Order: sequence, then structure tokens, then C-alpha cells
Amino acid sequence: MINVINEFVDKIENKIIGYRRDFHKYPEAGWTEFRTASIIARKLYELGYDIRLGKEVIKDDVRLGLPSKSSLNNHYERAIKQGADKEFVKHFKGGYTGVVGVLKNGEGPTIGLRFDIDAVQVKESEGKEHFPYREGFSSVNEEVMHSCGHDGHIAIGLGVAEALMKFNDKFRGTVKLIFQPAEEGVRGAKAMVESGVVDDVDFLFGIHIGLKAKKSGELVPGTKGFLATSKFDAYFTGKPSHAGAEPEAGKNALLAASSAVLNLYSISRHSKGATRINVGKFVAGTGRNVIPSNAHLVIETRGDTSELNDYMKERAYKILKSSADMYDVSLRIEGMGEAESGTSDKELIKLIRRNALKLNSFNNVYKKEKDLGGSEDFTYMMKRVKEKGGKSAFIMLGSDLKGSHHSAEFDFNESDLKNGVKLLVLSIIDISNK
Amino acid sequence: MINVINEFVDKIENKIIGYRRDFHKYPEAGWTEFRTASIIARKLYELGYDIRLGKEVIKDDVRLGLPSKSSLNNHYERAIKQGADKEFVKHFKGGYTGVVGVLKNGEGPTIGLRFDIDAVQVKESEGKEHFPYREGFSSVNEEVMHSCGHDGHIAIGLGVAEALMKFNDKFRGTVKLIFQPAEEGVRGAKAMVESGVVDDVDFLFGIHIGLKAKKSGELVPGTKGFLATSKFDAYFTGKPSHAGAEPEAGKNALLAASSAVLNLYSISRHSKGATRINVGKFVAGTGRNVIPSNAHLVIETRGDTSELNDYMKERAYKILKSSADMYDVSLRIEGMGEAESGTSDKELIKLIRRNALKLNSFNNVYKKEKDLGGSEDFTYMMKRVKEKGGKSAFIMLGSDLKGSHHSAEFDFNESDLKNGVKLLVLSIIDISNK
Amino acid sequence: MINVINEFVDKIENKIIGYRRDFHKYPEAGWTEFRTASIIARKLYELGYDIRLGKEVIKDDVRLGLPSKSSLNNHYERAIKQGADKEFVKHFKGGYTGVVGVLKNGEGPTIGLRFDIDAVQVKESEGKEHFPYREGFSSVNEEVMHSCGHDGHIAIGLGVAEALMKFNDKFRGTVKLIFQPAEEGVRGAKAMVESGVVDDVDFLFGIHIGLKAKKSGELVPGTKGFLATSKFDAYFTGKPSHAGAEPEAGKNALLAASSAVLNLYSISRHSKGATRINVGKFVAGTGRNVIPSNAHLVIETRGDTSELNDYMKERAYKILKSSADMYDVSLRIEGMGEAESGTSDKELIKLIRRNALKLNSFNNVYKKEKDLGGSEDFTYMMKRVKEKGGKSAFIMLGSDLKGSHHSAEFDFNESDLKNGVKLLVLSIIDISNK
Amino acid sequence: MINVINEFVDKIENKIIGYRRDFHKYPEAGWTEFRTASIIARKLYELGYDIRLGKEVIKDDVRLGLPSKSSLNNHYERAIKQGADKEFVKHFKGGYTGVVGVLKNGEGPTIGLRFDIDAVQVKESEGKEHFPYREGFSSVNEEVMHSCGHDGHIAIGLGVAEALMKFNDKFRGTVKLIFQPAEEGVRGAKAMVESGVVDDVDFLFGIHIGLKAKKSGELVPGTKGFLATSKFDAYFTGKPSHAGAEPEAGKNALLAASSAVLNLYSISRHSKGATRINVGKFVAGTGRNVIPSNAHLVIETRGDTSELNDYMKERAYKILKSSADMYDVSLRIEGMGEAESGTSDKELIKLIRRNALKLNSFNNVYKKEKDLGGSEDFTYMMKRVKEKGGKSAFIMLGSDLKGSHHSAEFDFNESDLKNGVKLLVLSIIDISNK
Repeated sequence: MINVINEFVDKIENKIIGYRRDFHKYPEAGWTEFRTASIIARKLYELGYDIRLGKEVIKDDVRLGLPSKSSLNNHYERAIKQGADKEFVKHFKGGYTGVVGVLKNGEGPTIGLRFDIDAVQVKESEGKEHFPYREGFSSVNEEVMHSCGHDGHIAIGLGVAEALMKFNDKFRGTVKLIFQPAEEGVRGAKAMVESGVVDDVDFLFGIHIGLKAKKSGELVPGTKGFLATSKFDAYFTGKPSHAGAEPEAGKNALLAASSAVLNLYSISRHSKGATRINVGKFVAGTGRNVIPSNAHLVIETRGDTSELNDYMKERAYKILKSSADMYDVSLRIEGMGEAESGTSDKELIKLIRRNALKLNSFNNVYKKEKDLGGSEDFTYMMKRVKEKGGKSAFIMLGSDLKGSHHSAEFDFNESDLKNGVKLLVLSIIDISNK
Repeated sequence: MINVINEFVDKIENKIIGYRRDFHKYPEAGWTEFRTASIIARKLYELGYDIRLGKEVIKDDVRLGLPSKSSLNNHYERAIKQGADKEFVKHFKGGYTGVVGVLKNGEGPTIGLRFDIDAVQVKESEGKEHFPYREGFSSVNEEVMHSCGHDGHIAIGLGVAEALMKFNDKFRGTVKLIFQPAEEGVRGAKAMVESGVVDDVDFLFGIHIGLKAKKSGELVPGTKGFLATSKFDAYFTGKPSHAGAEPEAGKNALLAASSAVLNLYSISRHSKGATRINVGKFVAGTGRNVIPSNAHLVIETRGDTSELNDYMKERAYKILKSSADMYDVSLRIEGMGEAESGTSDKELIKLIRRNALKLNSFNNVYKKEKDLGGSEDFTYMMKRVKEKGGKSAFIMLGSDLKGSHHSAEFDFNESDLKNGVKLLVLSIIDISNK
Repeated sequence: MINVINEFVDKIENKIIGYRRDFHKYPEAGWTEFRTASIIARKLYELGYDIRLGKEVIKDDVRLGLPSKSSLNNHYERAIKQGADKEFVKHFKGGYTGVVGVLKNGEGPTIGLRFDIDAVQVKESEGKEHFPYREGFSSVNEEVMHSCGHDGHIAIGLGVAEALMKFNDKFRGTVKLIFQPAEEGVRGAKAMVESGVVDDVDFLFGIHIGLKAKKSGELVPGTKGFLATSKFDAYFTGKPSHAGAEPEAGKNALLAASSAVLNLYSISRHSKGATRINVGKFVAGTGRNVIPSNAHLVIETRGDTSELNDYMKERAYKILKSSADMYDVSLRIEGMGEAESGTSDKELIKLIRRNALKLNSFNNVYKKEKDLGGSEDFTYMMKRVKEKGGKSAFIMLGSDLKGSHHSAEFDFNESDLKNGVKLLVLSIIDISNK
Repeated sequence: MINVINEFVDKIENKIIGYRRDFHKYPEAGWTEFRTASIIARKLYELGYDIRLGKEVIKDDVRLGLPSKSSLNNHYERAIKQGADKEFVKHFKGGYTGVVGVLKNGEGPTIGLRFDIDAVQVKESEGKEHFPYREGFSSVNEEVMHSCGHDGHIAIGLGVAEALMKFNDKFRGTVKLIFQPAEEGVRGAKAMVESGVVDDVDFLFGIHIGLKAKKSGELVPGTKGFLATSKFDAYFTGKPSHAGAEPEAGKNALLAASSAVLNLYSISRHSKGATRINVGKFVAGTGRNVIPSNAHLVIETRGDTSELNDYMKERAYKILKSSADMYDVSLRIEGMGEAESGTSDKELIKLIRRNALKLNSFNNVYKKEKDLGGSEDFTYMMKRVKEKGGKSAFIMLGSDLKGSHHSAEFDFNESDLKNGVKLLVLSIIDISNK
């Protein structure tokens, strides 16, 4: 079994790397993955998957941190120019850039694999040492870059798709390959979960290149310590007036927001664990002699657990509301991202580890999960799966990294991609045969 | 006419001074003037005035800054021990310490005179230079003192009462002698106004010793520039919890109040004139390691006009409310005092000046009103009289002052009291004969 | 005398209007008046004035609110393309855009006239009703417009220059025509004053179209009630850190600035008169999950008098400094503008009025000065002149205005320009002959 | 050995309980333990201990949270009336209420035992169920009560003192019995440590009734998780002025303190562990219409470790200082208490456990230390001992508790006292024989 998988995947390795380079060259930020999603859809369709697209898998009103309509339109045009699949791209218009490929293969468990597909708003390095630049596949889109490895995730996903079709006699059950937009800023998972795509999933896997597995050959079979987080923007709207002539006629949004900031940071620490709050940006006012009538705060809360994050978020909303009331200005809060806390299932961790050891791809398979120490909206899917009685795990696939995640110099070792494909395929077969 | 009045008032001068010294010895703070009011009532009754007492002239639920029930009871007992009139004192029980004496004397205008009767919470000087102490009539009540001249005002009022009876053939109309409690802290006038005592008054006069008339022989025939003011207390109530073990379980009243303070002082200046805000006291919390569940702020606002003060007060209430909401604590605001802005009527100013010049009592009668630069709840009466179509003026009676108003050394020249009596009597006769 | 002046100025009216239209078409904001100043210099030179340029009349290190070097360079290039005088423009390089024309005409007093030359950052109206647009001389520079009438002031100044040369047999003494940059934001006068240009001036006049003289034919011969003002920017610089992973390692500039804002608005009201404070803009932070390491506040204070404004400014600086200290962030405050309070001299007001009445140009010459109710850095010159024993006045020249000052629709009646020229010329002759 | 100790201690049990009841009846709060300390000194002296008193063992200038001089004097008088030992009490005058009894018994290690002796400011219950009240030995001192078990600690200490003398042939070395004042508020240990009393100690034990050992027969042989804490008071002093007439002349201490409060709660969370801050009390101002010139904040910080607490304290001091500067008011910070974090030595924990198991007094001896989850200034002694190369442990002695610590109903089971004596005596003998 192992040998057959190894052999097949090694054979398609160049194709997998090709996918990666193509997506790397045309990176698309969250909710604008028009080209990316259309190509994924085309490939899955051609492989014989039952595909679900756009509004089928993205619930409209829960998309967080959506760009403006005009920005979405511009990106749609751009994507078409950059070779989006003309037929499939239509389904994503308006920013519904999710794709799910389903393979029903007889009686058996439903296994989900999630791959995130968006890029980061970073300008890619043009240094000689930067491999994608040297090799001519660095980003052609200004200030957007696959600097978190999602290009590799898509490539793994398409590799898995091909291999599973090849080995569909080796397992029973249903596989769902979930390609999720807008993971950066933890914005996309919620809309997919709310559309129901993981409701029937018994076993769910997420995979990420690098993170705490910083060397090729390392494998971390699970995670704990996802920080729950909420990202939101607050907009205060007051009334301008001349600051010298009639200051009392104004409704001071800048002052309301300043009062909010102080009181936000004053939210009480919590005895149950660590919490965080940050106001990352503050932009307010027009002219020096005008009572400022607008203010915009960019905020995030975090907590060791979802409960702790909820506590922070709830208190923060109340403070924002009261600060606005205090100065008689109006307030709009816009949700920009959400992630839950979450922990990989112990049994699945063992299963992943067992299969990783079987392959000759890894020289350092960790026994236990590692602390992520960050946020990922995969947790939304984990939570839903758990509520429905299923299990989930998040895998860190080791690779020799260049630069840190989200830096202009970020790169990974392409030859590790095939290991991800092999591990996932083997694990699916293993589960379905239990 | 002048001569007859001069002669009579000179004859009763010692009696007037005797009144003053008696009231000075037994000073009573706002709403506790049980002895004072009972003696005023007795004198007016004996002179033949139709008297109205207690709840007849004090509207219950608008008394501002009322002491506690037990304090009122204790003072009632004290007053009886100090020689309150046993019959009349009963009407004032519970702090309804107002008296109005009415003299109906045929057809004619209704003229009101207002005398305030309360003392200040100041410990009287025991210095050799302090005349009341030297002469043995200084305060026997601890930390209460007639250090604003209201003892003199009562004495003038009783002198006027006697003289008017004597000269009741010289004028036609109705005279109302209004003895008002709790002027200090601007607490008492509202309750008298709301009871209707000035609703039928055509001409209303208030008189005050000293202020901007700091020399014997000076007379300021009117005022402008009463500052409108509101006095109120804010009580925040939250929930205590252990600051180390479970800080998030507390609702922090101290923090809410601190936030309120900063935002209160941040209320915008107003282009229409001067405004003020002050938080004079802040008392909160119990123990060092307890999230503080209570906070008490002592606040006042002021404005050049009632509109400006209303602006400040309205903004302040909103800020207090929002600060409480912000920390999920409850808020109670208690009104403690109110005064309006107000301006003396030009015509009455002329009349007072004319009559002052006729008397040989004044060597320096100002032509115009002076700016008070402070607050007086006489303004409540002025406002009501004006609304009903009448006119009013506030007179400053010159006297060589010792110490400043409200100081332990305050004293005035007793020989100026008779001038006040003469001026008021003459003015009433003058008006009624027009 | 009157007739000769009238005749001559009427004759050059079209030239004056031509100046105005040219400057209106090429408006230049403060410190970038390269084209404007070079043309003024050329005209004065050709008329025979002794001219002083650039660093001779602009003290380097006291220029307030200077644009960046690159902006200055770009505007310099632009000016040359737009027809700046090639010879003279060099003197202004780097933003020293002041010009003074001196006419020494025998023994006599030194008389200064000040004309401000900069435009406002406003996009000019393209409405049919907008005269400059209809006539084809509206601004060709994006988002810059002569919407305060300074184009007219320059035109008046050049008209006066020509007329004075014509009538140099009619007066004795020295005239200084002072063309000042950067009046908007009250930034330019200080640098001219510090260079000494008004140190020898005995009589100084400023003139402004419109303001409180909103009709053609009106003339207000002086002002009081310039509000003293200070404009300054505060830059807080802290240290970024990851808001989730290591919040304590950051030094939060946004929080320091928010604390500053609340405390700035809390500066106590002043019993001596009106004061103002405004934080017109607040820009801080980079990303949502980064402890913000930079914050920029745009601030102004005002006061009825320079003392009151100094009180506000001093308190504000202290609060900014302490807020920075509080969060261990560094602070830089940059002065952006300053104006003093000031009052026109009574004697000069009479003189102006007298001469205005002599001309048949005005049908409504006010007797007294009017309250400006705003700020003007002409006050810096007034103050210096007064210190040196001289006198000054600020004249408001009536004109039928369209739109309000600083609006996109602002316009005045060009036929009022000649009245300004006549009045100034006549007044200079009047003074020098005393 | 065990039997002899058991027998002797059982014999003196009544005496031990008698001590406890006497101290319970005359409780004395921190630094006022004049009677308590004098009686301890007398007993130790009579037993033959070398005693060190007052300033010998209490470093003057590091006493934290000292009462006022007059309060110390009053309590001294009270103590004498309540039977303080006349000879020894003199040494404690002024609040130097520490006692150390030393027994030099040949060559061997120096072993220290620490007993805290102060009571809490709580009014003792007069309920029928309250054993001390029923038995007639409840507190005769108003609002002071031994409601934390320190009366029992002293009784154990005196029991140990007697037993050690009895068994002085069984061990070699030096024993120091350290009776420490003012543990409540973590105020007293620092002054003893600074006097050098534990500098020569090789093994140090502290013992506390109850806490996490809530049942008779339980024994917790050590602790971890002392929270480091700092207690301090901040006094702001500004300048009063009339809030209506001249608000700008005041220096507003209340406003400075309010600003401090908001910013104190805004101190950033720390990634290394839990921190706390609380402002437990806020008292400021005099009258409603006076700019408040004084403010007093009662503050504490905590941290999982001393480093975390130091971070909080350092940030807090800076914020207090900057808030004062901001309003130009002066600041005085007074240290009121300090405790370090600390952990019991593993080897000593084993030793205590071993000896506890040998005795037949305990039916539930824990294997490991427990988390204290609070603060104790015993940590100061632990730290010094560790610095000097010694070891220390803090023991929790189980007892059936009534009420919680510091409640009016607190009580413990007196029959557990002898177990404490036995355990300590046995452990000393054990150590000295190694």
C-alpha cells in the first residue's frame, strides 16, 4: 500500500509543484480568489469530483471583512485577465470564492480535508536569494503574496484529489475537499460552516506548512492552544462644527473614540486565563479647526478559550456603545474576523502519527500536539464537527522555511509538498478501513 | 413721610438688632431652621399678619439637598431645647421651615419681600476681634454660623413687618413677607416657588447685606449676572469581588466614576458664554483588594445663563449615565440645588435708587446694577414672577464687612440694618401709590 | 488730490483685475508661492522698487507648518512650468516665498502695507454660477484655490505700488509693501517679523476683502477680537510588538495619544475669557494585531487674548508630555502656526475712516472697528510694530461675496479692488503730510 | 522518640489552648501587638531562651503600612491596661513588635520557625454558634479579631518552645523562634528580614492553620503559587480654588487621580503570566465648589511571579507620576506592603511529609505542595534564606474550619494545635540528626 502511494505521488510531484508555482504567481487576497477558485473548480471537475461552488458553500451574510463592491469587481476583472476559468469563475462573482469537491465512494465515514487558498497583503521580495523571484514565478499582483504557504496547501489539495481518485478502490466512504477563502484575518471559515459544508463530516483534517514544524522531515500531528479571537472595526459618526466659532454644536467622534480606547484597555483581567485586547489603528478627523465627526478604530480581542474571548468581546462592544452614547455620536461595529479556540482530537493525533511513521517521508514525528499560540479559523470547522459528533485535527507539515510567515522573504521547500499528499491519502484510507 | 419713617425705624432699631443677635446665637443650617422659623411665625402672628407655614409654603417633593430624617429629627429636638416656639414649631416638623406673612391692605398691587433665614456650616471665630464672640452672642451650635448675613436679613424682615403695620394707612395693596429656608446650596427657593407663594406677586424684592456693597452707606439697587447653577450628586453602584481571585466578577464603580470625571471635564466649551463644571468630591471603594462597588461624586455645573447651565447639566447627566452603562453599574443622580440666571428689572432699579436717594441713609447709591458673579436661588422667584407678568429686583445693602462671606470672621455693621428697613418700607409705599 | 487718484486708479483698473485673474488661475498654497512671489518681485522691480527677497525677509528656522522638502521641490518645478519669473524665482527656492518692495522717498515716517499671497487647499467649484470658472480663470492646480481673496490682495498691492510711484511727489517718507506667504494656518507672519521687516515701521496697515464687510461699498476701518491661536502637531513614537504574543513589549503610542486627548479637552476653563482646544485629527497604528507604535495628533488652541491662548498652549504641552511619559513613548511637538490677539489703533481707525469718507467709493463706512472672531497672523506684525512704538490697523474692504470664505464657491466683486487701492494710497499721503 | 514527644505535648495541650484563648481575647492588629509580643517575650525568657526584641529584630525604616504615631501610642496604653508585661513591653514602644527566641544547642544547623502574631480588622461574631463567643474568649477589642488563626500560630510557637527545651538533648544546632508582627497586608516580614534575623538560617519553616487544608487530620507539606504583590497608597496634592470664580487657578488632584485610575487599569497584560491591578479606594476633594486639591488612591498589584509583579508596580508608579505631572500636582507614594512569589523546597517537603506520616496525628498527608493562590510575606524570608544558601517550606496544618479566613465567624479546631507542635519538634530533631 505504502509503496503504491509513494510511487504514484512521486510521479505527479512535478504537477503538484507546477500548481504551487502558478498560484504563487497569481496570489489573491481574501474574498478575491476568483482565478484561484475557478482553476481549483476546473481541476476537481475534470478529475470527476462532484463540485459545489460559490453561494452553495459560502453563506452570504456571515462573510467577515469583505472588501468593497468596487474592489470585488475590479479583482473579478483582473482575475479574468489573468486566466481565470471563464465558465466557473462566474459562480464566485461578488466574492463567494469557496469550492468543495465531493467524492462519494460507497458506505463509510465522511472525511473532510480543508485547504485555505488566500494570499497575504505583503509585497514580495525581489532579492536574489528569494527562490520564487529567481525562478520567475513571484507575484505579479502588487502588494499581494502567498507568504503563508497557502499556495502549497492548494497544491497538496489538488494532489490529494488526484491520488484519491486513483486509489478509490482502497477506501469506502465520502471525502470532501474543502477549499476555503479568506483564512487571513480569520474571515472565511464561518461562512463555509454556516452553509453546512462540514455538518456531515465525521473526521476533519486541516494541514499547514511550517508554523511550529520548521524543518523538512518534521511532522506535528496535532495542535492545541488556538487562541480564540474576534476582529472588528468600530466607526463613530458625529457632527462637525467650527472648533473656534461653535464648538458646542459639534458631536466629537474623536473624543468618543479616545474615551473608548482608554476604557477598552481597562477591561478587567480574567481569573480563568489569558486575554488580550488591542486597538491597532485609530483614524479620525478632518481639519485642525473642525470638531471631528468621524473616527475609525481597528480592534481585536483574544482569549485562551472562546469563553474568555467572548468575555472580552462583549465588554468591548459595551464600552464602544457607551462611549458613543456619551458623546451623542452614532456607532457602527463591523465584524472582521472570528476564530474559536480548539484542540485536536487525541485519537486522530495518534492516527496521523502512526501513518506518518509508516511513510519514509518523515525523520522527526512528534508524539504530541504543539501549541499554536495563534489564531486560525479552522477552529470554526472543528467546533461544528465536534458539535455534530465528529473529530478533527490540525497537522503541521515540516519544511525548511525561508523568512517568517507573512514576511516578504517567506518560502518553503517544494519537495515537502508530496509528503503532505501522501500522509493525507494514507490517513483517509486508514480511517475508512477501521 | 420720610421723617416719620426714619423716626419710627430708629425707635425700633434696638429691637431689630436684638433679633439679629438672637438668631446669630442660634444659627440653623438649611431645612433645620426650626427655632428660627417658629420665632418668625410668632412675631408675625403677634403683629397681626396672616401667616402661612410649613407645607403650605414648601412643596414637599421639590426640596433639594434635604438632610436625612434622623438629622431632621435631631435638629427638631435641639430647636425645642433652644427655645423654639412650642406652638408654631410643629408646622415645620420634617424640614418644612418656610414662613410667609401676608398683609392685605385694600386694593392695590401685591408686593413680595424675600428674606433668607438659614446659616452656613462654618465654625465661628473665637478671636478677640470678632464682635459677636466678644459680645457673647456667637454661635452655640457647633460648626454652624450666620456667616453670610441672613441673621441680619431676618431682622430687617421683622423690622419691615412692624413698620408696615404702623404705616398701613400709607399704602394700598397686599404685602407678602417671605422667609425662605435653605438658600445656601441654592436649595430652598424652588420648593417655595412650586408651592405658589409668588404666583400673585407683582413686584418682588430680595435684599442682601454686603456682597458687592462692601461699605456702610453704599447701595446697589439691582443685580445682573447671577450664574445659573445645578448641584447634584451621582452614586454609582456595582458589584464587589476579590481583586486577585476573580476580578472579572466585579462591576467596578470606581472605574466608571473615574471615566465619568475625565469626560465631564471634557464637555465642550460653549460659544455663547462662560460655563463651568466641577467634581468637588470623589469617594469610592472599601478595601484595597476588593473591586470597588460604590462611588459617590459631588458635582456642580454653572453657566452665564440658564441655557448655558442647562447645556452643561444635560451633557453631564448623559456622561454619567454612559459611564455607568460602560461598566455595567447602576447610577442614581440626586439633585442637590438649582439656581437660574436672572436680571433685575430696570424700572425697579430706578425706583429703589430714587427712594434710596430720598433717605439720608446712603452716601453712595449706584446708578446701575452690579454683576453678582455668583449664584442665588432668589432667581427661581424672579423667573416665576416674570412669567406671571411681574417685576423683581435684588438689592445689595452696603455695610462695613469683617471677613469675607462664609468665613469664620464674617461680620457686618449692625447699624446698617435700619437702612434696609427704611428703604424697603419707603419703596413699598412708593409703588402702591403709583 | 482725490480726483487725480481716482482718475489714475480707474485707468489701471483693468490691469489690477488682470493681476487678480492671473494669480487666481495659478493659486499656490503656503510656502509654495514660487510663481506668485517671482511675478510680484518682477513687477515691483520694474516699477523701480528696491526689492528684498527670500531669506532676506523670511527667517529660516521660524517658518511654521513647512511642507516636506520633496513637496517644496515639486512645487518649485511646477511653478517654473507655469511661468514663474526665471530670474527671481531662484531666491525663493526651499520655500522662502516672501517679497518686500521698499520706496524711500525722503524724510518722513515709514509706512508698511501687508498683503498676504497664499491660497487655500480647496477644490474650486466648476459650477456655471461660479464666475472664475465661467470666465476661464479658475484654478489649474488641483485642490488649491484662492478662496479667501488673497489673489485680490496681491492685485491691490501691485496697484498701490504703481500708484505710489506715480504720486511720489505727493508724500514724504518710506513705504514698505510687504507680500507675505503662508497666512493660511497662521504660519508666515512670524518668519517675516523675525527677519526684522517691520522693525522700522511707524504705521502698518493690513487689508482683507470681505470678512465682516460683506457688501460692496462697505468699509470697516479696523478690527478687534483677533483670537490668539496656536496650531501644533504632536507625534508620539513608541515600540511595536505583537499584540497577542507579547503585548507588554510594546510601547503603545495610540493609547498615550488617547489619554492625551481626554486630558486635553479637560483643561480647565479660564475665568478671564473664552478659550478653545481642538484635536482635529488623530492618526495612529499600523495593523490590527500590532501594538501601535506611532500616533499623530493635529491640535489647536485659542484664546480671547494671547495670555489665554498661552495658558491653553502651556497646559496642552504639559499634558502631551506627561501622556507620552506615562506610556514611555517619545514625543515631538511641531509648531504649525501662531497668531496673537490684537486691536487696531484708534487713531488709525479714524484716519482710515476719514479718508474713506473723502472718496466717493464707499456708501457705508463704519464708525468703529468690528470683532474679527477669528485668527490672522497679521497680529504678529501688529505686536512687533507696537513694541517698537508704532501703530497698526487692519481694514476690511467690503465686497459682494459669493459663498463663504474657504468654500469652493467663494468669489468677490472685482470692481471693489480699485477702492482698496485708492483708500491705501490716499491714507499714505494723508499720514506722510501730518 | 515519637511516643515521648506525643506524651509531652499532650500533657501541655491545655496550656497551649490557654495561650490561644488569651491571645484570641486580646487581638492586636499589625504593629500594635504590644501585649501579645510582651507576653511571648516573657514566656520565652522564662523558658530560658535568649530573646531579641523590638529594634533588634525590626528594621526601622522598612516597616510598611505603619499606623500613625498617635494610634501607636493609644494602643500602647491600651495594651498596658490589658495586662501587657510591664518590663518587656517597653522594647516594643513605637511599633517594633517583633520577638525572636534563640536556643543555641551545640554544633549543628540553624533552624528557623516563623509564627505570625497579628490580628485582622474584623468585628467578631456574637452568634451563638461562634465558639469563642460562647466560651467567653471572643475579642474585647473593637473591630479587631484573630480571624486568620494567628492566635493558634503563637500558641503552637510557645508549645514548640517548651517542648524543644524539654528535648534539648535530642538535637544539635541552633533554633530561632521568630514571632513576626503585621503579616496581614504583608507588611512585617520585610522589616525582620532587613534586620538580619534569617541571615544565618539553614532551614526555615512557616506554618499556617487551614488555608487549603480545611479538615482536621490533613497536612499539606509545602506550597507553591504565592502571588507576588505590592500594596501602596498614592497621595496627590494640588491647589484649591473657587470652581466658579477662578477654576484655572486650581491644580486639580481629583482629576489627576481619575486620569491615573483609567491608565492604571490600562497597563498591558503580560505574556508571561497572570497579573492584577486594583484601585480599591478613591477619596478626594472637599467641597462641591472647590477645585479639589487632594486625592488618595489605595492600590495593589499582583503577579504570578515577582518579575510580573515588579512589571506591574513599575508601570503603575510611572503612570501615577505622569498623571500628577499632567495636572501639575505633587505626588507621594507610600509603600504599604510587599510579598514575593515563592516555592517550598522539594527536599523539605519530603522531610515534613515523612515526619507527619510517622506521627499518628494525620490521616491525610498530601504528597505534594499545594497552590496558595494568595500572598504571604513569609516569602520575603524564603527569598533571603535561599539567597544565603538555605532552604524553606511553608506548611498548611489541617483543621475543621468554621467560616472562611477573615470572616467574623472564623474558627478552627483547637485540638489540632498539638499536631502542629509535634510535627515541628519532630522535624527539627530529624534535620539536626542528619
